[in-house]
Amino acid sequence: MSLIFKPLFEKESSTYTYLLADSNTKEAIIIDAVDETQQRDIGLIEELGLDLKYIIETHVHADHITSSCPLKQKFTNAQIVLGKTNSIACADVLIKDQEALEFGDYQITAMTTPGHTDGCMSYVVGDKVFTGDALLIRSCGRCDFQGGSADKLFDSIQKIFSLPDETYVYPAHDYGGRTVSTIWEEKAFNTMIGDSVDKAEFVRRVNAMELALPAKIHVAVPANQVCGSKIISE
Amino acid sequence: MSLIFKPLFEKESSTYTYLLADSNTKEAIIIDAVDETQQRDIGLIEELGLDLKYIIETHVHADHITSSCPLKQKFTNAQIVLGKTNSIACADVLIKDQEALEFGDYQITAMTTPGHTDGCMSYVVGDKVFTGDALLIRSCGRCDFQGGSADKLFDSIQKIFSLPDETYVYPAHDYGGRTVSTIWEEKAFNTMIGDSVDKAEFVRRVNAMELALPAKIHVAVPANQVCGSKIISE
Repeated sequence: MSLIFKPLFEKESSTYTYLLADSNTKEAIIIDAVDETQQRDIGLIEELGLDLKYIIETHVHADHITSSCPLKQKFTNAQIVLGKTNSIACADVLIKDQEALEFGDYQITAMTTPGHTDGCMSYVVGDKVFTGDALLIRSCGRCDFQGGSADKLFDSIQKIFSLPDETYVYPAHDYGGRTVSTIWEEKAFNTMIGDSVDKAEFVRRVNAMELALPAKIHVAVPANQVCGSKIISE
Repeated sequence: MSLIFKPLFEKESSTYTYLLADSNTKEAIIIDAVDETQQRDIGLIEELGLDLKYIIETHVHADHITSSCPLKQKFTNAQIVLGKTNSIACADVLIKDQEALEFGDYQITAMTTPGHTDGCMSYVVGDKVFTGDALLIRSCGRCDFQGGSADKLFDSIQKIFSLPDETYVYPAHDYGGRTVSTIWEEKAFNTMIGDSVDKAEFVRRVNAMELALPAKIHVAVPANQVCGSKIISE
């Protein structure tokens, strides 16, 4: 058995989508799929002969629209997975902390990591953690909308940091073109948080982020609350 | 021992840069570094405490300017490596087919793969091949400048296809955000070449590519012929 692992990139929103599959059974999962690149992803799933079981979101994104619903229409056995806190009606599975899903001989285990949004989840597959917008490479998610809380994000990142140091970190975005980090690197070099930053200092740093709202937030959040089943025009 | 492996992306030219290192000895190589992202790459090399030994180019690029020379100025023990056919004076090593360079306990082995340009090289490190613009994901490099030859490219891709089917393919670019392929996938699904395409049909397909010249070609090629040591203005 071996793991098929395809990190994929969407340029406009700098979003990483991750396709994983068991090479023997062909059972597959996709994490954070984007509407703009759905044809690429559908093509890849079809070419590789994969049996898509789960369409997983780390959170309700504000910067792009998910392709969950179109993917489910195409791969009708697939189930849409979101964290339980989101209470999203279009999700087939509202996953809880430490709950695991199987694809072939592999498991993906959910980890609640609120803070960027209240419903944010990270997911662990073997030596890889998919951190969504909780832990980014050398940075972290903003906390100024969708129930964001720098206080909660601090605790969530500590939880992620409890994974083995060698664990590979695959975030939902990187604006500098980096594709992967590790837990030890983020403990050592993350500019927002790390071994020496306490919660008060972290909250201060997060609150000092001066960021414009994501351009698509008023379209993306409502669209993602229905799993991308309809695009709401501005 | 383990391999540090960082695929990195430059958005403007959709170029992949690859940083590899031996985690024990810290000896490192970088493949196809780009001027636009040199600060990111320098930062990463410094943070990880790497000893950069080789700055390697798959070819003299026409679409972006290399950061070879600035990297060498920063990491003064590093040597610039290009394929022998290029006869580039600024290169410290003009590498030949099947010649290998060592970084820690790892080796990188050169493979002449002309066709996109006459001096194109691919490089093998263990189960990974870095194919430059010879073999792209589901595609291949154009052959209409810098001594390009579809006839030669066909033979070069056959040579790449002689690697084990499970070998991971890391190209210099992907415009669709795919980050990795495998030899078996390209044999099966490459739209330009594959198990069933003969040389005449491949040459016909390459000649039928209708592409504008790369926007930066008149700046990038002269700049890259001096390893990015000076930027020649248009």
